[in-house]
Order: sequence, then C-alpha cells, then structure tokens
Amino acid sequence: MTIDQALQYAQAHRSRWLDRLGEFVGIPTVSTASEHANDMVRGAQWVANQLSQLGFASEIARTSGHPVVLAESTAAGKGAPTVLVYGHYDVQPPDPIGEWRSPPFEATIRGEDLFARGASDMKGQLVAQLSAVEAMQKAGPLPVNFKYLVEGEEEVGSPNMPSFVQAHHERLHCDVVLNVDSMILGPALPSIVYGLRGLAYFELRVFGPSHDLHSGQFGGVIQNPAQVLCELLAGMHDSQGRVTLPGFYDKVRPLEPEEREALAQLPNRDEEVRSFTGVSQMWGEKGFTLAERIGARPTLEINGLLSGFTGEGSKTVLPAKAMAKISMRLVPDQTPEEVHEQLLKYLKERAPNTVKWEVTSLAGTTPAVVRRNTPAMQAAVTALTQTFGRPPVFTREGGSVPVVSLMQTLLGRDSILLGFGLPNDNLHAPNEKLHLPNFYRGIECYIRFAYALGA
Amino acid sequence: MTIDQALQYAQAHRSRWLDRLGEFVGIPTVSTASEHANDMVRGAQWVANQLSQLGFASEIARTSGHPVVLAESTAAGKGAPTVLVYGHYDVQPPDPIGEWRSPPFEATIRGEDLFARGASDMKGQLVAQLSAVEAMQKAGPLPVNFKYLVEGEEEVGSPNMPSFVQAHHERLHCDVVLNVDSMILGPALPSIVYGLRGLAYFELRVFGPSHDLHSGQFGGVIQNPAQVLCELLAGMHDSQGRVTLPGFYDKVRPLEPEEREALAQLPNRDEEVRSFTGVSQMWGEKGFTLAERIGARPTLEINGLLSGFTGEGSKTVLPAKAMAKISMRLVPDQTPEEVHEQLLKYLKERAPNTVKWEVTSLAGTTPAVVRRNTPAMQAAVTALTQTFGRPPVFTREGGSVPVVSLMQTLLGRDSILLGFGLPNDNLHAPNEKLHLPNFYRGIECYIRFAYALGA
Repeated sequence: MTIDQALQYAQAHRSRWLDRLGEFVGIPTVSTASEHANDMVRGAQWVANQLSQLGFASEIARTSGHPVVLAESTAAGKGAPTVLVYGHYDVQPPDPIGEWRSPPFEATIRGEDLFARGASDMKGQLVAQLSAVEAMQKAGPLPVNFKYLVEGEEEVGSPNMPSFVQAHHERLHCDVVLNVDSMILGPALPSIVYGLRGLAYFELRVFGPSHDLHSGQFGGVIQNPAQVLCELLAGMHDSQGRVTLPGFYDKVRPLEPEEREALAQLPNRDEEVRSFTGVSQMWGEKGFTLAERIGARPTLEINGLLSGFTGEGSKTVLPAKAMAKISMRLVPDQTPEEVHEQLLKYLKERAPNTVKWEVTSLAGTTPAVVRRNTPAMQAAVTALTQTFGRPPVFTREGGSVPVVSLMQTLLGRDSILLGFGLPNDNLHAPNEKLHLPNFYRGIECYIRFAYALGA
Repeated sequence: MTIDQALQYAQAHRSRWLDRLGEFVGIPTVSTASEHANDMVRGAQWVANQLSQLGFASEIARTSGHPVVLAESTAAGKGAPTVLVYGHYDVQPPDPIGEWRSPPFEATIRGEDLFARGASDMKGQLVAQLSAVEAMQKAGPLPVNFKYLVEGEEEVGSPNMPSFVQAHHERLHCDVVLNVDSMILGPALPSIVYGLRGLAYFELRVFGPSHDLHSGQFGGVIQNPAQVLCELLAGMHDSQGRVTLPGFYDKVRPLEPEEREALAQLPNRDEEVRSFTGVSQMWGEKGFTLAERIGARPTLEINGLLSGFTGEGSKTVLPAKAMAKISMRLVPDQTPEEVHEQLLKYLKERAPNTVKWEVTSLAGTTPAVVRRNTPAMQAAVTALTQTFGRPPVFTREGGSVPVVSLMQTLLGRDSILLGFGLPNDNLHAPNEKLHLPNFYRGIECYIRFAYALGA
C-alpha cells in the first residue's frame, strides 16, 4: 500500500530529516531582535527552498515586518481536500545565553534529545511535516492538496498576520488548517489541543526623579519609582491568586460542568510539573485544578523587571525609573484591547502623583477554542491512535497561537493543532530540546493524517 | 602675614589646581568593579605621589581589598596640633553611562562646573585640601602637623577600614580628624555636617522554578519569583511611608525638641529639591520635615531590580529568579547588624513556601553624630565665616561616611566634616560635577582652618 511505502521511506531516511533540522536551527531567526534581521531573511529563504524542492510553487511575500513564505500544490486534484499548513520560522531569543549547555543555534544531540533554540518551537514540527510530504511523494500521488503559510513573527505576537491573511484571503482558501505549532502531553500520551489562551503583552515604565539620585542625599524625601513599580505589580494579584485589574474576569466564559469533567479525566500532572520545574509547591488561583488553571483561566505574569543598579557589588542610587514587562494570558471571551483598558484603569486608580508612568502594548492575541466533531479532527484522532497505539486526549493549552482565532475569523476555518513538542522541551528557555523519538513519530503521524483525510 | 601669602598663592595658581584635578579624575577608580583593579592601584599611586611631592613621608599600604595611602609630616613641631586628613580616591560606577553628556573619566568644563565621575565625591575635595597645603608651604611653615589616610573602598562601605585603623592605631594618632568627604548647602550657604546616617546594603534574590519557563505553559500554576519579590518589597513600607521591618524604629533616637527647632531654622529646601529632582511632589515619612527625613530618620530604598527578559520587545517567560538591591540609611542608635536581622525576620515571616530566597550583605556603616563645642569645630566655623562672609549652619546629612563613627570608636576622635560639594552635584549619578567657584573657596577655607587651629 502507498501509505506503508510512505511510512517505510520516512523510517529509512531519518538521518536525512535530522540533517535538514540541523540546518534549519542553525539559522538564528530571533524575530524580536533587530540585529537578526538578515537571519530572518535567510530563514524565510530556507523554508521557501525546501518547498520548491518538493515541487511546490513557493514565494517569499513581504510584510511591514518579517517576510512570510507562501506555497501551494494542487497535484492531488480538485476532488481532494486542501490543507493549509501553518507554521512559523522565527524563534524566541536565546537569553539567558550563559545557561545553555551547548550553543543555542547549533543542533547538539545528547541522549534521545536534540538541543537548539527552535528545535521544538517549532522548527522540528515544520521539518517533520515537510519530511512527511517528501515521503508521501516518493510513495505515490499526494492524498490531499497542500498550501503553506509560514510566518516569521509568531514569537512577537504575529502583528502582521491579520492584514496579511485578509489580503491573501482567496489564495489561502482551504478546507482545514493544519497548525503544526503544537505539542502532546507525553511521549506515550497523545493529545489534541482544542483551546488556546490569548495574550496581551505590555511594558510598564515608571518615572521618578529626572535622573538617578544619591540614595543618602534624597532617600526619604523623593518617591522611589522602583518601589512604586513593586507596589503596583504586587497589587495586581489578591491573596487568592486572582488578578485584580478592574473587570478582568467579567468576560471570562465559565467552565461548563461537562468540560470540567472531561478535563478531570486527564492524567494528573501535578507531580510531573513539580518535578520538571523544581518547585517545592504549586501555586495558582484557588478553586481550580492545574489543567483548568493552565488552559481555561486567565493569568497575569511579570516577564521582566529592570531598575537602577544591577551590576556586581553595591551602588547607593535612588533610580530615576523602573520598568516591568507584564503579560496576561486570556481565555474566551477576553480580548487584548479590553485588558489593555483594564490595566490603564488600574494604574490610573493606583499610581501615586509622585511619579509618572506609561504603558506600551507589545503584543495581543485573541483566545480560541475549536470544534471537536469535524472530519479533519477525526482524521487527526485516527492518525494519533495508529501512531501511538492509544487514542488521544483533548486538552486546552496555556500558550497562545495567534493565528488560530485569526483563521476562524478571516477564513472561517478551524485549525487542527497537531504537533509533537513535549511539556518539558524548555520552550522559550535555555536548553530547548526536541525529543527525537517524537520527531520521528510526528513524521509518521503527519503521513497518516493526510491519508486519513484524503480517504 | 603668612596666611595672606598662602591665600594669594592659592588664588594665583588656580589653573595648576584645575590641571591636578583633571589628572586625578582621569583615572577610573571604580572600586566596586573588578575590571578596574589596576586603575585602583594607579589611583593610589597618584595620591601617594602628590603627597611625596609635598614633602610628606608617604606609603601605599596593602589591605585585603584596595590599597590605602598613608602619609605624614611633623614639620610644624611637637607643640602644634596634628590633623588627620581622611579622604578616599575611589568613585561610584559611571552607570548608566549613556546618560553622560561628556565622558565620565574626562574632566569637561561647561560654564562654572567641571564634569567628571568623582569631581565632587570626592577627588575635588582632596585636591583642594592638598592644594591648600602646597599654598601654605609656599607661604611659610605649616601651622599644624598633617597625617593622611586616603582609602580606596569608601564607595563600597569601607570593609577594610575597621581592621586597618585598628592595626595602625598608633600611627594614626591625632588631635582631630579632618574629613574632606563632605558638602555645604549652597554656594552662598556654608554649613557643617554634624550627623551622618549609617548604611546597610543587601542583595535579595528570590528563586522560583529551576529554569526560565514558558509563561503560557506554566503561568497560573507556578509562583512567579518576580511577583514574590515585588510583593516582599512593596510590603516593606506602610501607607505612611514608614518602614515595616519588625523592630526597625526601636533603636531610633527620637529628635529632641531643641534639635528639631535648630533644624527648623535651616532654609526651606523643598522647592530647591523639587526643582533639582524634577518631581512634581515630595514624598516621605509622615510627621517630619524634609531636613529631618534626610538627616535624622532612617529609610529603606530599592537601589536595583532585575528579573527575566529586559531587552527590546517581548519574551513570554516566567523567570526562574528575581533580584533586588536594597539599602537602609540608619540613624543613631541603629546598627547594620540589627537591621540585617530585622530584614531576615521580615522575609521569614512573609516569603511564601513556593519560592526560595537568600540575602547577601554588601555593606554596613554605623551612623554617627559629632560634638559641636570643640576647638576644632570652632576653627572650622571661623574658616567658613571668613571665606563665605557668613557663619555656617549646622546640618545632619543623609549620606554615610563610614569612617566617622570608626574614628570615634577606634581613635577616640571626632571628625570635622569640611568639604565643598553641593546638593545638586549629581553624586552617584550621571553628569557628576564640581562647582569651580566652590572648589577655589574650598582651598582658601582649608588654609584658614589650618591657621585657625594652629593659632
């Protein structure tokens, strides 16, 4: 059978897929850092070349930010369904770089893992899907038509995706979106994400005196902006772990009893999370389970803090300013615009007159939930079941994939979130890794998904 | 008269004193930064050379940290009083370096000010005193004997001074200490500092997960150490601006009514401080005036904050750790050791079990108050009155000069704090400056002080 030939080809050429991934992670496509602008272009070219080599008509399309790679093939014919593969070639910054055990932009294999920035999020997933296409082509005609949309700004909140998808609406027409920027719960525990949190990311700056002051000469008479910042940030949670921004929970869709029941069926991950993160005790909003807190409840995090003197030793300075990066993870029906307003309202109510402050919005993504009763979802379930020997569980993920809600709104299409990262892959952190057995299983699963959908 | 000749010489050679200061500030003697270790040695050598050229027996003495310059001359004879001049050749780091209008280690004159790190704190004061000695030598025999103790660790809390002064107790024997690390309230408002706050400086580190986490995957179930740090820091003040560490005010000597009355006679500096610092509104402990808050009340400041991602753009990280530099300014009879204990007690009571934390003590200085009814103090009053045309006011300063309490304890001698910095000299901040008219008046005042004391 064709599918078996494709699976055999995929298994026989693992070193080829590995080399391909090594090449891709070697390009430091850090979208947030302007010094990597040229690497971003190289990254887009690399993806476009791969698609051309597979016989796709591919193109690098400009945006006002980083370029987008588009490609398509109608080889399967008009009767076959069309799958739009969504991915991104950009990665998070490697900071703090000193904590990497091997260079972040050099694929390094230790044990069963390949270490590199982007290995799991998500160059590994994209390479797995492309490798699956190659294997299927070697075995016979493709069972479905593929289109590709691979952007370079997912890690900075996909600011250009809305206008881009709108502008290319006709060209991106498809039956279903295959979003490969996803993960499963464990190497033996296949899962499908059907809910994603949204994101609203801000920089808050508090300004005190016009310049740094001597803390002895002025300490006690001038309000310290670092202290004001700490007080403002501390006040954003109450003692129950709830966010205190005015109206923050007003639009949060309550969990239905049946969904709470389904989430309660998931294996208990408390011990796994505790051990992976090294903390002695969990934390979070009272009254919700871990799965509910991660997938179905909104949060507010401090992502960064900077003020005054942070070098070696002591410097007795009363700093002129203090900065925090803060972000909220959102759930339906919150919107980034509304939490922005809530943040401003909170600051207007709480910030003392002794300082000035300003807020910059750095990223915004709407949360999304997709339907579980479609033919494409059934194809994904079949592929995962055959690959892992057990049916997948359905989960809601804590992270954000901006394009999922976008595809619902602008193309009217649900996304199938099918990717093979693992919770302990150190996404966005030092020593990001890809579990290679999962990489190989991922290739097989993408093959099975296409044949199941095309059947 | 000899004194007039000395004053004339000082006035006639101003460009010589200015060149000397330019040379001294050109050496980046940043004591807290290990990469400046060689510059520290160069700084000590520069001071020792100056003293040798004045005919003093000088020596560079080792410590376990930066070296100390010692020198003495008994040219005035046994009947004359001996003055121990104390100073320091080290300076604060120039950070944030981007905010300097001219290179921090290059004397740059704009208007009546000379800009450079250390220009006011306190290379300018030391050069003024050395220049006064040269002028007196040119005019005739010195009216008093001088000894010198010039250390290189004042800006990091003088960690080696206690053992050094103890070990050189005999050699440092004197009648009075002339501490030139000081300032006056305004170019037309001479003042003498008789009280100095102490200092206790700490680094507080809060540890959450063992490594940085993806804020979407783990936000809401793992306590964020930056949030814990902010909550701990925010709780260190109450709504009245009082410090909440347990027992913090127990040892604070209440201000006597007569001292409050004397401090109330000082010119009101609110408007000056507001305008210099650029804030719209003052802040501080309720129930005390500005002069009282600065000189006679203890404070707690955040000197630095660092956690997570602080670069350009957004990174959705839940940081593994968070750090704050915090320091307390102390008044009699607080001690650095006791506030350290109070800080630990506060943290033990307040820090949640979800994180680990540690505190490092980086500097400690006992506060000091000196007597106002001694002959040396009278000589200082005379010198200031003659130089500025009006008698000085007595003030308590907000900063710390560790060696003042040390000299009381180990040598049994009060210090006369006679220096000519100004409140708006940008000490410890970018664009530190020295007001040159004050520099020249300072030289004359040191001459008058020596003759008045020797008379």
